[in-house]
Amino acid sequence: MFNDPSPPDAAVTDVPARRWETIARALREDIAAGRILPGERLPNETALAERFAVHRHTLRQAVRSLAESGYVRVVHGRGTFVRELVLDYALQRRTRLTQNLADGGEQARRELRGAEVQEAGTWAQPLRIAAKDRVEVLRTRAVVRGRPIGVSTSVFPAVRFAGIAQAFGRTRSITASLREFGVDDYTRQRSVVSCRMPTHEEADALARPVNAPVLLVDYVNVDGHGVPVEAGTTLFAADAVQLSVSPEDFQPE
Amino acid sequence: MFNDPSPPDAAVTDVPARRWETIARALREDIAAGRILPGERLPNETALAERFAVHRHTLRQAVRSLAESGYVRVVHGRGTFVRELVLDYALQRRTRLTQNLADGGEQARRELRGAEVQEAGTWAQPLRIAAKDRVEVLRTRAVVRGRPIGVSTSVFPAVRFAGIAQAFGRTRSITASLREFGVDDYTRQRSVVSCRMPTHEEADALARPVNAPVLLVDYVNVDGHGVPVEAGTTLFAADAVQLSVSPEDFQPE
Repeated sequence: MFNDPSPPDAAVTDVPARRWETIARALREDIAAGRILPGERLPNETALAERFAVHRHTLRQAVRSLAESGYVRVVHGRGTFVRELVLDYALQRRTRLTQNLADGGEQARRELRGAEVQEAGTWAQPLRIAAKDRVEVLRTRAVVRGRPIGVSTSVFPAVRFAGIAQAFGRTRSITASLREFGVDDYTRQRSVVSCRMPTHEEADALARPVNAPVLLVDYVNVDGHGVPVEAGTTLFAADAVQLSVSPEDFQPE
Repeated sequence: MFNDPSPPDAAVTDVPARRWETIARALREDIAAGRILPGERLPNETALAERFAVHRHTLRQAVRSLAESGYVRVVHGRGTFVRELVLDYALQRRTRLTQNLADGGEQARRELRGAEVQEAGTWAQPLRIAAKDRVEVLRTRAVVRGRPIGVSTSVFPAVRFAGIAQAFGRTRSITASLREFGVDDYTRQRSVVSCRMPTHEEADALARPVNAPVLLVDYVNVDGHGVPVEAGTTLFAADAVQLSVSPEDFQPE
């Protein structure tokens, strides 16, 4: 059991670095793959020492490193638990989903869930086009440590960005896709944050229960001339993501 | 019934201004006082015409003005319904709750629900004081159109702001209270936005059901020297408030 890891000392830090690092990586992969879920307890020390065929000191070093990097939480007298993922997502001048999470030390995988070309309708106003104009709509999902954390609807004026779904399919990045259409830079014009209960479909996409609220960000991104290039909505699982807003993230360059 | 108000024309705009304005004001007061709740239908045209002893044209003018100002929504074939309040609350360089709502055309009343002096504990870190240092804690509630829309916990270092609860009791304003302690200006250092279900106590304070999610803003305000003057948390009723974030609201002066 990991309920009382000893403090760092010579005996522990003398453990060959490679061994505990290998164990920590294996446990991180278990967590990332969802083999051990948030809130669940790690197997006890004896079981893990047997699995990895190492001394308990080595195991403790591995667990301590997982605790320091926020993967687990040691509850004295109860055991070591996998932590719920709380990502700090900064709303800033250049808000980039994948980059934003990478800044926080997390790798996000972005999946394409669907793409359509349709009339702009209510997207016309934020994109400053006509309601009858056509838009390309991408439906994507962001996955961190094997868990969905957000689903986005990203909408682009079809005249300027015809075929952007294919670009996204290749690059898995909105930024890289826009670059293929000559948009070397874009900035966040406005974000509106709200909160509500998900629909059944949204809850399924986020792999969350329907009684867990979602955080919504409605946004518009503009190019260097202030022309809207993308409007959209991202739904974040509220148990996994919080949004931060700091004045220094909005300084003009 | 108000399901088909006629478009503005000479007959309607010839109605003496004072009469329909008086009716509109009376209906706004009914809504503000919660005598007609969001989602409820206004009494039908005949009933209202009798109550105010006016012609239906006059009533229609009053209802049209309520619809234009966002108090009611006309659903063709079904009637006129009181709209849920959706306030656009800007997170900006100078985030002031009451002023913010006033900018959106709403008047907020701020009530003092309680005040304590206690050890800083977890408030020490955002306020950059010691955990054993004392803080003044104010518990307030913001009310718009007669409905609670947010409850705040505002925390001040007690050494610098001893007696700020009394100042707030007099002024009903954090900005005015801080000014009494020589803080002429303060800015928002950071906001962290999250979303969760309320506790029973929080739901009661917001006069909302316990299954309606709340939007949380954790914040720190600093004086002109960057020294924290206030840390706190505001819980907003998610059905009533959305947060907006725009780069121009963060421009340095």
